[in-house]
Order: sequence, then structure tokens, then C-alpha cells
Amino acid sequence: MGQRRVSAGIVVIGDEILSGRTQDINVQQIAQFLTPLGVSVREVRIVADVTAAIGEAVNTLRERCDYVFTTGGIGPTHDDITADAIAEAFGCEIGVRDDARAILERWYEKTGTEITEARLRMARIPHGASLIENPVTGAPGFQIANVFVMAGVPKIVRGMLEDVAPRIEGGAVTYSVSVRLENVREGDIAAELGELQERYEDVSIGSYPWFEDEGEKGLRRGIVLIARSTDKDVLDTLKSQFQAFETS
Amino acid sequence: MGQRRVSAGIVVIGDEILSGRTQDINVQQIAQFLTPLGVSVREVRIVADVTAAIGEAVNTLRERCDYVFTTGGIGPTHDDITADAIAEAFGCEIGVRDDARAILERWYEKTGTEITEARLRMARIPHGASLIENPVTGAPGFQIANVFVMAGVPKIVRGMLEDVAPRIEGGAVTYSVSVRLENVREGDIAAELGELQERYEDVSIGSYPWFEDEGEKGLRRGIVLIARSTDKDVLDTLKSQFQAFETS
Repeated sequence: MGQRRVSAGIVVIGDEILSGRTQDINVQQIAQFLTPLGVSVREVRIVADVTAAIGEAVNTLRERCDYVFTTGGIGPTHDDITADAIAEAFGCEIGVRDDARAILERWYEKTGTEITEARLRMARIPHGASLIENPVTGAPGFQIANVFVMAGVPKIVRGMLEDVAPRIEGGAVTYSVSVRLENVREGDIAAELGELQERYEDVSIGSYPWFEDEGEKGLRRGIVLIARSTDKDVLDTLKSQFQAFETS
Repeated sequence: MGQRRVSAGIVVIGDEILSGRTQDINVQQIAQFLTPLGVSVREVRIVADVTAAIGEAVNTLRERCDYVFTTGGIGPTHDDITADAIAEAFGCEIGVRDDARAILERWYEKTGTEITEARLRMARIPHGASLIENPVTGAPGFQIANVFVMAGVPKIVRGMLEDVAPRIEGGAVTYSVSVRLENVREGDIAAELGELQERYEDVSIGSYPWFEDEGEKGLRRGIVLIARSTDKDVLDTLKSQFQAFETS
């Protein structure tokens, strides 16, 4: 494990997320998977089921980040265009591949399911890609260069990440501490917090207000202070400093 | 209300979302607010608390979309850099503005809160922007050209959207129908579904698998079919067609 900073981009592909019908939870799932590996998510893009939109997002982020993860659009239906869009983005060929087809055949044999032409679409893999195992429904994802192409269903993403983990070369792991303060407002401590950030310039310090409506009892409020760093000792110091805000 | 297509971009600003610590819910909230106004979300970007990252995302999306909504980074602490980043992106001046300052003064007078230098940061508004009312904590957001700059706390975003609504000139409203099918798999119906999409080319038809793990009873599965269109009659027809997949 080196001490360099390793970054990732995420491309969420799906009209259902953009329309607000479905709440995405893969961004959080992938970010929480990457943190202990020493990889920080740098940017996320959520794009429609449109070839050009997918290609632009993937090509930008694969230049900019060490790794890119995509979710969505690798099923058997007409709106599943991710594999073809990725092939186009990389300028490479795509077709039904024997290894992917064999996985589908074995999977469907167990369940007595007919392999239709539509299902064979899920064996379309760009040339040069390696497969990502799907323990939930069989149909594989794939890795091409630094881009990991996964399903959209969160359960499948979780399974695919297990297969992806050994392929990730992480950097220094970023740790975090958080302190939740009640009846403290950002404006009360902003100056001192800014001074802490200046003193510990290698630490990322964030402040996030919270509100809870307790009906007749009124509104409770406070802030959560978070510090992130690769240095655990510094985080211990900052945790004490954060806690001191509540009693000061 | 015209019949043109009106699009929006969303820029979510915040390290806490990228790190996976906080689950964003503003994208869904904003998308669900925009749908009945006849505005479709075209692209979302989640970026770090970094001036250049905010500027790039906002400048790209404000060219590409009719409206842009940003969330996060307009509080009083050192990590709240959105207002300055937006001013830089637009190449315009920014400073404490009298109207915003007056709002803060009235708000804090009610609660007996001292206006610190840090709190005055929240009255920094780019020149030429109009304010967006914040019914929860007072500190306003702002609109500059087609960009609406809002807080990150979902309760505040909800309040600010009420003030934004009359400023949105929407297009044709997109309606949707959805049918949840059990024990139907995408591969079973992909061909027929693709034919439906070809026949109704102005409708956006999506297919989304679902899985529910019921422990010893095993895994239940199915798909949700969704059609989106500005034409309600066509959607009624498609709903019947979708339902027919379960019995066929």
C-alpha cells in the first residue's frame, strides 16, 4: 500500500435516478467500499440512458481518476446500452464473448431457463475486457482498463464489488472522526473552526448543520463536525477540540 | 405552458456525499419537484468542496440545460465556498449585500443571536443575483441567470424550492405509469418490450429488475416496467400491455 492519493469517479447510468423515481444508493455503497481500500471518490456523474452521455462521462472521468465505476444499463432489455456505449467510448469492438456466454449457459441450465437472444445481449463484452463475477443473477459485469462496469441493482453491485476488490491498488487510507454537537450553530464556531483548518492544513475539516423537528417540542438543531486525514493521531487531537466546542 | 422540452442540471456540492458518509436525498427531492412543472433532469454532478470543480460543473450544465440547481456550501464556515465559486464561474463580483444582510439582521434579532463576521459570510451574494428565501434558518440562497444556488440541508432545500417554483417556466409535463411484475424476468419479455419501444418511439420505456430476500423462503424477484410520456392516453395503453406480460 503506497501513501499516494488514489481517486475514483462514479458514473450512475439511468433515467430512473434522474426522474427521481428511484433513490440511488450505489454512490454511497461504492464510496463506503472504497474508503478502507484507500481510494477517495472525486466526482460522480448521473447520466441518462443515452450513448453519448455515457461516453462523455466515462471518458472524462477515466482520464481524471485512477478508477471509474459505472452502475446500470447492462441487462437484456432495449434500454440497456451501457456495454455498447463503453465500447464506443474506448473505440473498441464488442460482441458476444464465449466466456461470458458460458457463464450464462451454466447459470440458466441450473434454473432451467431458456437462453433467448435478449439474454445473450448480456454476453456482449467489449474486446480486451475482463469479466466481473455476478453472484446474484449470473450475468457478468466487466473491467476495461481502469473502468469497472457493473449492474444497477444494489444487491448485485455489492456482489460485484467483492470480485473487484482484489483488483484495486489503493493508497493511503483516509480515516475520519465525527462529533455531533447540539445547540451549537455554525456561526458560533466558524472563526475558531477556520483557525483549526489553517493549523491542520493536511486535514479536511467539514461542518454540517442538522435539524430535527420534534413537533410541539419544537426544532432541535446542531452541527456535526468531521475531520478526515491519513494521520490517526491528528484526528484524535481534533476530536477533542471539536468536543470542546460544546462546553465552551 | 409550452410543449417544448425543458431540462435541468443538478450540481451537488459536498465532500460528505462523495465520502459516502451522507446519503444525498436532494437529487430525488429536486427531480420530484421539477417533474410536475414540466422540467426533466438531464444530468447530475456531485463534486467536492473545490472552487474549480464547482465552477466546471456549473458552467458546463448552465450551457447545456435550461436550469441548474446547486445544493450545499453556502453556510458560514471555511468549507462553504459555493457563493465565491459561482461568482468566479460567472466572472462577476461578490460582496456582502445590503438586502441579504438585512434579512440576516432581522432573523438574528428575533432569536437574540449575535451577527459575527462568519455569519456575515452568508450575506455574500454575487452581483446581479436575486435572493432565494430560506424559511428554515434565514440565510438566503440566490439565483444568478439560470442557476439556483441552494443550501445542502434537505429541509432548507424544500423550503427554498417553494420560493423558486414561480420562477420556473416549464414545458410539457411528463407523466409516467409503472407496473410491478412478479416472477417475470427481463430476459422473458425483452424482445416484446423492445418492439413496444419501437412502436411508441416518443415514449421512454424502462425496465428495472428487483429482488427481495425473504430469508428461508428464498429470493423473490420481478421487474418494474415504467413508461414516460407527455401523452396520457398512450400511457394508459402501455399500462395494459405491461400488465399483460404477467399473465402471458
